[in-house]
Amino acid sequence: MSGSMNYPENEIPEEETCTVFIQQEEKQVVVPRGTTLLHAAEKAGIYVNASCNGKGSCGKCRLIVESGNVESDETSLLTEKEKQKGYVLACRTRVVGDVHVVIPEETLEKKLKAEGMGKEATEKLHGLVDPITPMMEKVTLKLDPPTLDDSVSDLDRLIRPLKKEGVDASRMRTSLKVMRELADAVRQDNWEITVSVLQKQCSSELVKVLPANEAYASLGLAVDLGTTSIVVYVVNMADGKILSAASGHNRQASCGDDVINRIVCAEKDGVKKLQRMALTTINNLTSEALAVLDEKAAHIDNIVISANTTMVHLLLGLEPRYIRREPYIPTVAEFPIMQAGEIGLKAAPHAGVFVMPGPASYVGGDIVAGVLYTGVHLAEELTLFIDVGTNGEIVLGNQEFLMTAACSAGPAFEGGGIRWGMRAEDGAIEKLTLDPQTLEPQYSTVADRPARGICGSGMIDLMSEMLLKGVVGQDGKFRQGPEHPRMTVFNDEAALVIERGENVGLDEDIIFTESDIKSLILSKAAVYAGFTVLLEEIGMDFSMVGQMIITGGFGQHLDIDKAVIMGLLPDIDRDKFSYMGNSSVAGAYMALLSRDYRRECLSISNTMTYLDFSSNTKFMDEFTKAQFLPHTEARLFPSVIANNGCKGNAA
Amino acid sequence: MSGSMNYPENEIPEEETCTVFIQQEEKQVVVPRGTTLLHAAEKAGIYVNASCNGKGSCGKCRLIVESGNVESDETSLLTEKEKQKGYVLACRTRVVGDVHVVIPEETLEKKLKAEGMGKEATEKLHGLVDPITPMMEKVTLKLDPPTLDDSVSDLDRLIRPLKKEGVDASRMRTSLKVMRELADAVRQDNWEITVSVLQKQCSSELVKVLPANEAYASLGLAVDLGTTSIVVYVVNMADGKILSAASGHNRQASCGDDVINRIVCAEKDGVKKLQRMALTTINNLTSEALAVLDEKAAHIDNIVISANTTMVHLLLGLEPRYIRREPYIPTVAEFPIMQAGEIGLKAAPHAGVFVMPGPASYVGGDIVAGVLYTGVHLAEELTLFIDVGTNGEIVLGNQEFLMTAACSAGPAFEGGGIRWGMRAEDGAIEKLTLDPQTLEPQYSTVADRPARGICGSGMIDLMSEMLLKGVVGQDGKFRQGPEHPRMTVFNDEAALVIERGENVGLDEDIIFTESDIKSLILSKAAVYAGFTVLLEEIGMDFSMVGQMIITGGFGQHLDIDKAVIMGLLPDIDRDKFSYMGNSSVAGAYMALLSRDYRRECLSISNTMTYLDFSSNTKFMDEFTKAQFLPHTEARLFPSVIANNGCKGNAA
Repeated sequence: MSGSMNYPENEIPEEETCTVFIQQEEKQVVVPRGTTLLHAAEKAGIYVNASCNGKGSCGKCRLIVESGNVESDETSLLTEKEKQKGYVLACRTRVVGDVHVVIPEETLEKKLKAEGMGKEATEKLHGLVDPITPMMEKVTLKLDPPTLDDSVSDLDRLIRPLKKEGVDASRMRTSLKVMRELADAVRQDNWEITVSVLQKQCSSELVKVLPANEAYASLGLAVDLGTTSIVVYVVNMADGKILSAASGHNRQASCGDDVINRIVCAEKDGVKKLQRMALTTINNLTSEALAVLDEKAAHIDNIVISANTTMVHLLLGLEPRYIRREPYIPTVAEFPIMQAGEIGLKAAPHAGVFVMPGPASYVGGDIVAGVLYTGVHLAEELTLFIDVGTNGEIVLGNQEFLMTAACSAGPAFEGGGIRWGMRAEDGAIEKLTLDPQTLEPQYSTVADRPARGICGSGMIDLMSEMLLKGVVGQDGKFRQGPEHPRMTVFNDEAALVIERGENVGLDEDIIFTESDIKSLILSKAAVYAGFTVLLEEIGMDFSMVGQMIITGGFGQHLDIDKAVIMGLLPDIDRDKFSYMGNSSVAGAYMALLSRDYRRECLSISNTMTYLDFSSNTKFMDEFTKAQFLPHTEARLFPSVIANNGCKGNAA
Repeated sequence: MSGSMNYPENEIPEEETCTVFIQQEEKQVVVPRGTTLLHAAEKAGIYVNASCNGKGSCGKCRLIVESGNVESDETSLLTEKEKQKGYVLACRTRVVGDVHVVIPEETLEKKLKAEGMGKEATEKLHGLVDPITPMMEKVTLKLDPPTLDDSVSDLDRLIRPLKKEGVDASRMRTSLKVMRELADAVRQDNWEITVSVLQKQCSSELVKVLPANEAYASLGLAVDLGTTSIVVYVVNMADGKILSAASGHNRQASCGDDVINRIVCAEKDGVKKLQRMALTTINNLTSEALAVLDEKAAHIDNIVISANTTMVHLLLGLEPRYIRREPYIPTVAEFPIMQAGEIGLKAAPHAGVFVMPGPASYVGGDIVAGVLYTGVHLAEELTLFIDVGTNGEIVLGNQEFLMTAACSAGPAFEGGGIRWGMRAEDGAIEKLTLDPQTLEPQYSTVADRPARGICGSGMIDLMSEMLLKGVVGQDGKFRQGPEHPRMTVFNDEAALVIERGENVGLDEDIIFTESDIKSLILSKAAVYAGFTVLLEEIGMDFSMVGQMIITGGFGQHLDIDKAVIMGLLPDIDRDKFSYMGNSSVAGAYMALLSRDYRRECLSISNTMTYLDFSSNTKFMDEFTKAQFLPHTEARLFPSVIANNGCKGNAA
């Protein structure tokens, strides 16, 4: 490779730059010779899945080079067949001439279907909040026109009747922008105006004055800003109806799957880059949700953001580096009510923004939202709450106390680090059984589309089926040899074939390798160990748990029984379990509509006692013990052992 | 003239533009053919005195065209001699080719000497305020470094000891900017920090966190933003010492002398233009005052602005048009504490800005500041307060009530509308007597410089001398004919020669015309009528006035006796008078240093009852009666009539 990367971007001699054409998108970019295809795609505004943040270890950023010269590092993550077809890893491939590339569908960040997480969930929420008390109070006023005997200023003229309407104007500030627009606004519709007052925690601000004939119905935006996925609801602030929803992948995914990789990326490239990515995703989803309604972003004047601590820091452009360094300190845990304009959110610039408070670096506002929605803090019985997303956060408590911890479950249940893992999007295998004789899988996919991979609930089904049908042992090793028609070898590893490529139009078979099993076991062990340690901390055990609430991105078809069989969930009365979907966006929705709920969030966050597992030896012990199917201590899973046996255990 | 003005600026063919060279400033600008010299000078950033806002009526924007082609309208405001020398009125002269111009000294806006209004006044203020309670509270904190057992966020870590220091943090917001800088700031000097909390009316905001080793001593800025002149004081916030001062002419002067002309200009050219002019003046003066101290603007974190209602509107970019239209409504009368950055003031962007509240469109915050400083609102005896600036505002009251009115005195006492009128700057005649025989003037000038014109106190001396020595009658008409060696004729008008041009290096004699006398009489009549009507309104008269406070820009040498003789001030016991200089900046200084005084300003403004004279028939009557020297009702001025007689009256 030449030293061309040393030129500042604008001074590179023409012969030292290359053009990269990206076929499907009809885009092309000019980049310095030696640029990786991952950076070239990024520059073209195309977000390529790159779980490991360009380290060459996840193998997800696969592109096909149709023509042109590139230099690729050696990798075991591509088969010879793939390499012959032109497959390369974008992060390990540098352009040395003009190049044409094709991005395979599985590499492109595809959009989750809004319907997928929409209807069922949103109907559950409608009517949940009553009365509705938005951050943005809107009042229509008819002012007395001024006379020589009543010559108070326009602002004072407005405040008089506002007080009569019951709006607390004693601590009300007025923004300079409003003052600048005020004189015309009050006179335009014959002294009839609509006034927007943003109620903050302990003061209020007059943020907009419109002539009454320009008034509009307020919209609200509830945002679940996940590490992996982002969901937005557009809400009618008058009646709480969810008018539309949209969801998609966090564009930051190209900087790595988990929060640690995102922070590393922010330290390297600056937090602004990740801030822009989060904003772009949210704003595009907002546009999409509004397009369905034929509504304007300027009518959104209430926003709630629910996110983990790292995501909040990145969205607001706060320094995230101390989150990942012991003793793991967030910059800010509790936020004032801000305005959309200062953050960069697509909405009325004066829109109020409530950011869910988060009790710790690894238990954030999304969990507070989850507690709010699921009511852990109001429960009489001892409640275990788990949100499995890219991390795994646990809450143990009831109306008297709340303890919380994060157990670094990793992104396996969301598809991360699993060769054919994917999120619960079109074509994801979400339910699965194995034929006891032939081990032939029977499966269903999201939206009944040809299989493209396997999502969280599908993996849980697969793991328990493999265990029950003797395909793997309790140690997670395959018990079937390569001679079995459903078994194969990939990169010197045994693997189960879930679907033949030719059946679903893929060049390769969809397989599940021993490494995939290992990843999944580590994830479930972390979650189970988390439960155990939290209970032990207060001298309790699973038998004392009155209810267990599971939330997060498994998809609609989480099979509790199978989750118990693989040892992810404890072996307690199945009636005690409930799966409550995306509780982060549901909590955001509640806070959007109610001042009391917003206050409750602050109180939940302040009540929570955080336990740090990172240097907790008990956790390490329990984590090790749980790396077995279902667990090294069989007595903990009596129903699994008694009812099903574990064929694989025989070996 | 061709139609060249119709081209958008960038598309004018080259032959249709002209270059204007301005000699002293070594500046040149290219303007479309047909542009007035006034606009060309403005474009070159040179502020030319133009009292009438370019209407061709004040005759102040005189330039000398050295060479080149121009087209000038006919004007009687220039003598033939002047025209021969190349004098033109900039506002009535259009360029039709490349032009060289010279700006005569009297036309250039010259800076008032800081010393002129400085030392004496500022020494009076030092020590006046105790205790000092700035808007910006600054506290140095030593934080506990975080541990795994104490892992609260950086912000919460900071708030804990802040509360211990007695800072009310319960209603404290934190700006997004601070959040963004926080993580690094707290760690940079080993958890030692200096925190700035801006105390607002009913909440507070954490606006800056600095590593302790970057802390600085706070400076304050007290600004008197006058229609004509602007004064700034730079103050040490720790001990209240005035460290330096600067003053200069409001650049808006090129848009007219009085607030009405400024509003008209804002309606025509947009408020932004006048906003920029005010900001530029203030910011340049601030730089100048800081340069003496070798200090940075970034260390100014407290600011108070005292100004009349129109000036405040223009500075903040608020719509001013309804101020001049019946029923004369300001947009805002009472302002929240703002920040320098949002206004555009040269200071720390987070600096708190308190704008003096103003009770009415024509009685503004500068009068509230004046009341605060002079203590009208605390007086036991009935007090009359008059501030003579470009307007003339009166307050009548004591500790029990405050009434106020504006009497449209006009800018005569500041030199406006007077041929040789000028402000109290170098070379202004400020004291004057006439020899009873020869009428030869004896005068002194500001800074003992060669006479360049006559300022307010000089005019008052001149008027009373002319009356006493029989040069004019009580009707303001000359009693001396043109044959008298000190008399002359100018534009068909009689005029008194104050100084021969050749004695002071001017091409023309410094004269005082019958029109000048008329202007001065109208001004003094408005003030006197204002007093009378305000007193009548509460059933009182001058005999009940216990003290009379005069403030404003007359200069240091206001002769009370002579002001009574000409009928500007009432004929009451001279002991009751006091002249208190620039009470607007003095009040601003007090509010800068004390929370109690800031609150007192709001209370003063709210207590004031405003009386509108614009449609007040009593005022019109009194105004007419007062257009006589000293007054049509001689009984009102017994001491003048008894002791001095009025020689002129004999005629």
